[in-house]
Amino acid sequence: MLSDIEIAQQAKMLPITEVAAKLGIGEEDIEMYGRYKAKLSMDLIRRMEDKPAGKLVLVTAITPTPAGEGKSTTTVGLAQGLAKIDKSVIVALREPSLGPCMGVKGGAAGGGYSQVVPMEDINLHFTGDFHAITSAHMLLSAMVDNHVQQGNALNIDPRRIVWKRVVDMNDRELRNIVVGLGGKAHGVPRQDGFDITVASEVMAILCLASSLHDLKERLSKIIVAYDYNGKPVTAGQIKAHGAMAALLKDAVKPNLVQTLENVPAIIHGGPFANIAHGCNSVMATKTAMKLADYTITEAGFGADLGAEKFFDIKCRYAGLKPDAVVLVATVRALKMHGGVPKTDLTAPNVDAVKKGIVNLEKHIENIKKFGLPLVVAINIFAQDTPEELEAVRAHCAAHGVNVALSDVFAKGGAGGVELAKEVVALAESGKADFAPIYASELTLKEKIATVAREIYGAGDVVYAKEAETALKDFESLGYGNLPICMAKTQYSFSDDPTLLGRPSGFTMTIKNCRISAGAGFVVVLTGDIMTMPGLPKVPAAEKIDVSDDGVISGLF
Amino acid sequence: MLSDIEIAQQAKMLPITEVAAKLGIGEEDIEMYGRYKAKLSMDLIRRMEDKPAGKLVLVTAITPTPAGEGKSTTTVGLAQGLAKIDKSVIVALREPSLGPCMGVKGGAAGGGYSQVVPMEDINLHFTGDFHAITSAHMLLSAMVDNHVQQGNALNIDPRRIVWKRVVDMNDRELRNIVVGLGGKAHGVPRQDGFDITVASEVMAILCLASSLHDLKERLSKIIVAYDYNGKPVTAGQIKAHGAMAALLKDAVKPNLVQTLENVPAIIHGGPFANIAHGCNSVMATKTAMKLADYTITEAGFGADLGAEKFFDIKCRYAGLKPDAVVLVATVRALKMHGGVPKTDLTAPNVDAVKKGIVNLEKHIENIKKFGLPLVVAINIFAQDTPEELEAVRAHCAAHGVNVALSDVFAKGGAGGVELAKEVVALAESGKADFAPIYASELTLKEKIATVAREIYGAGDVVYAKEAETALKDFESLGYGNLPICMAKTQYSFSDDPTLLGRPSGFTMTIKNCRISAGAGFVVVLTGDIMTMPGLPKVPAAEKIDVSDDGVISGLF
Repeated sequence: MLSDIEIAQQAKMLPITEVAAKLGIGEEDIEMYGRYKAKLSMDLIRRMEDKPAGKLVLVTAITPTPAGEGKSTTTVGLAQGLAKIDKSVIVALREPSLGPCMGVKGGAAGGGYSQVVPMEDINLHFTGDFHAITSAHMLLSAMVDNHVQQGNALNIDPRRIVWKRVVDMNDRELRNIVVGLGGKAHGVPRQDGFDITVASEVMAILCLASSLHDLKERLSKIIVAYDYNGKPVTAGQIKAHGAMAALLKDAVKPNLVQTLENVPAIIHGGPFANIAHGCNSVMATKTAMKLADYTITEAGFGADLGAEKFFDIKCRYAGLKPDAVVLVATVRALKMHGGVPKTDLTAPNVDAVKKGIVNLEKHIENIKKFGLPLVVAINIFAQDTPEELEAVRAHCAAHGVNVALSDVFAKGGAGGVELAKEVVALAESGKADFAPIYASELTLKEKIATVAREIYGAGDVVYAKEAETALKDFESLGYGNLPICMAKTQYSFSDDPTLLGRPSGFTMTIKNCRISAGAGFVVVLTGDIMTMPGLPKVPAAEKIDVSDDGVISGLF
Repeated sequence: MLSDIEIAQQAKMLPITEVAAKLGIGEEDIEMYGRYKAKLSMDLIRRMEDKPAGKLVLVTAITPTPAGEGKSTTTVGLAQGLAKIDKSVIVALREPSLGPCMGVKGGAAGGGYSQVVPMEDINLHFTGDFHAITSAHMLLSAMVDNHVQQGNALNIDPRRIVWKRVVDMNDRELRNIVVGLGGKAHGVPRQDGFDITVASEVMAILCLASSLHDLKERLSKIIVAYDYNGKPVTAGQIKAHGAMAALLKDAVKPNLVQTLENVPAIIHGGPFANIAHGCNSVMATKTAMKLADYTITEAGFGADLGAEKFFDIKCRYAGLKPDAVVLVATVRALKMHGGVPKTDLTAPNVDAVKKGIVNLEKHIENIKKFGLPLVVAINIFAQDTPEELEAVRAHCAAHGVNVALSDVFAKGGAGGVELAKEVVALAESGKADFAPIYASELTLKEKIATVAREIYGAGDVVYAKEAETALKDFESLGYGNLPICMAKTQYSFSDDPTLLGRPSGFTMTIKNCRISAGAGFVVVLTGDIMTMPGLPKVPAAEKIDVSDDGVISGLF
């Protein structure tokens, strides 16, 4: 079989004006970035606000394993499947981060015959949104340190500057640094560090903002430091929010591209799924829902993290009510949850599949707790045996759970028709009765306990002293009503990445908490969360090249 | 009078497709970035290679003072003036850097009624070229440190990693830093620092590359470090050049925009004018020359630095032969060269103007040394008196030097017609007989002596020990045949920024030398060159804002 980039480069893309025309969007409402990428105008987004919305379908997955679950691929393939049965559909995805493309092979543009294109552009600079976010973030960093250097009127404690710097690159060397060396003219020495751009609060803000106005308001609320009296200092006090918003004026506009089968795709924003909420922008999702009968979107990591935050943070803020959920599972991943090591995955093992289904079951139960109907999508890999696939299907059927085989990696939309029909039936059933899992009025600890017990299956939750103090501070500062953003390993329901399957009754430890006051959530840290990846011994970048004619190779 | 941004926002821009059509460029040869910006296709650039070239006119200036000389404004205004007298013309400029826009008011998109538009976009992210350069540079940084971390097969001495990091922001806090702290998993501790992106060698390479192929070759030659045996280690040995070129595949394409009067403008690249050569890209200039009868371009700082490097580095590498030079002078700047402090510039002072003309005279002599005919453009400021303007005009006329008044800031192209007619006469005269000031075969020290004596008027040149050693090393490594890139204060012919007017017989001190082996020049440092600016006490960013409709204000 061809590689992803080879398939993508053979795609017969439509000019983006034609993709837009399919959605009833005229040329005056798009800004082109080359022939195959465009931004939607703010004017269009505003005009859409009063239109009736189509159905919203969330694609999420079981607990991820190194075996891969193919969530983005299923999301794209499902949209192509819906188009095959003549539904009006848009797929709404996150933008991939440039840094990881240079590290380990793998991106976020789908795979096989279910990709979004032009994949090289989408995976590299795309329309510059992440660069704009980096610039806005780094402007604030420079202004904070400049404020301290130039008299420090706000009485900022340099030991308590919490606004780190960012770059869209995997660069472990910048994780822990000392800045401001070299003497009086060159700043105030202090500890600092770089995160990768997707971990920037500016990214989370861009994805939750309902308008450019709302974006600027949220930017102004970012807490960048604390003063010597322990009071928070905000980006608004630094007077950075106006210029930051100016730098983001185009980045806030959703990007229009297409799938390999010319289905419209809106790709916009991409916050981390641990210290942030892990889904594409509110403006993109809402606009997609006005432009098509079906909007297919996804959330990061497994359903315990991605779907929970999609529901409890994004849907809460945006007033969104999803109509159905697709839960992606693979035979390979279920085998790992059933105890098979990664090296033995190719050997057929029906018993391990059956044993691993407990993980799937817990995710099914969780999604029902949000009041939503779901279908399990079994994402077929070439090595899966009919017996293994049947084991999953039969289990779901026996428990009254809708299930569909999905073969979209190998077959594109044709491999997603069965799933598409299930999704239509579910979405039209009127069974959805969405509500977040916790009320905003609960205390932060009550919210944490609700998610830990109801979604993760924890028995008890204990707090490190730093976490206790932080939560008390945040409530006394008036942030008690914010939703929580759990930063937990994606590899287990628990806070221990080695506990596969369906652990239960475990004790969760909350190590610390942070506030993203601009984005509007309290980050709850259950372990050491890596916000700046490193490169492997042989980085993918060593193989990436471009021909004299500008054709990129080795990207995936 | 209206501010620059107010004038720019009132401009009646043509769709960029129409600007392209004026040049005979069809829609298939441009890639649009919104309605008013486009990139020229590599295919077009290649097809142009065999076409006959038009005239090339360089706009340069006397030694800059805080009074301002208006070089970019004159460049844009001259192009508009040529269009007014029905000449086919393109203005070819550098791209401005985002960082300084946030610091002290001022940009590089012209001023008044002689600007390039859309000015907000051009001054902020434009088409993302600088972001791509930052990414390519930072990828190499990450790969170098990752190489050391992951076994260091190339035996790199971490104390001799010479490849710093970059960001397009004024951020003094990052000038001198320590990276790789936090223990074994987080890199190798060492000293490092950030430069602003325009100081990146990647920027200089992009501007000197003749094709994507040549770009990749040059990238591979970048020296990033020395090993424990003192041997240079290159980006090619790190295997970063392919991925870096891939990241730059769109950034190498010149950008098409327009002036306020709809004259086509190609804006591309923007290397520092001290540690690099300070002019726009070779590909942009060459393509412009094939598309129009007149290409008007400019070089950074005064003619002693900008024009010298334009001639000795860019023209040498690209095989360009300029046809005429415009030397911009202002009454205000001449008064400063004549001894008037900045605070007294508004008071008429014909004597000071006459005294300061010595600076202009030296620049005139220099340009003639390159075999080029020139015209002095007196860029009018509102406060200039008729007597002061006449003093300059009369002096030039008396010495047989062509001269023209230019009033393009206030009047646009109409204010540049006189200058345009002079330029046409000069360029058509056939008087140009261009040659660089030194031969490639001279030793590095001979080249330095030639520029110091012939162009700067120095008496003697002395070398610090570091400089002696570096030059010896470079010659033994085979770099002796490279052109030199003088990094000297722009405020004086000498290496002392306080010596205005026409100093002579001074002793120049060469403090150190660096090699830009990829760009292809030896940087000769005559003082402390600041490669990372800081923000002022009240950064311009504090006033920058964007309305709910996306209209930017306070940018200038």
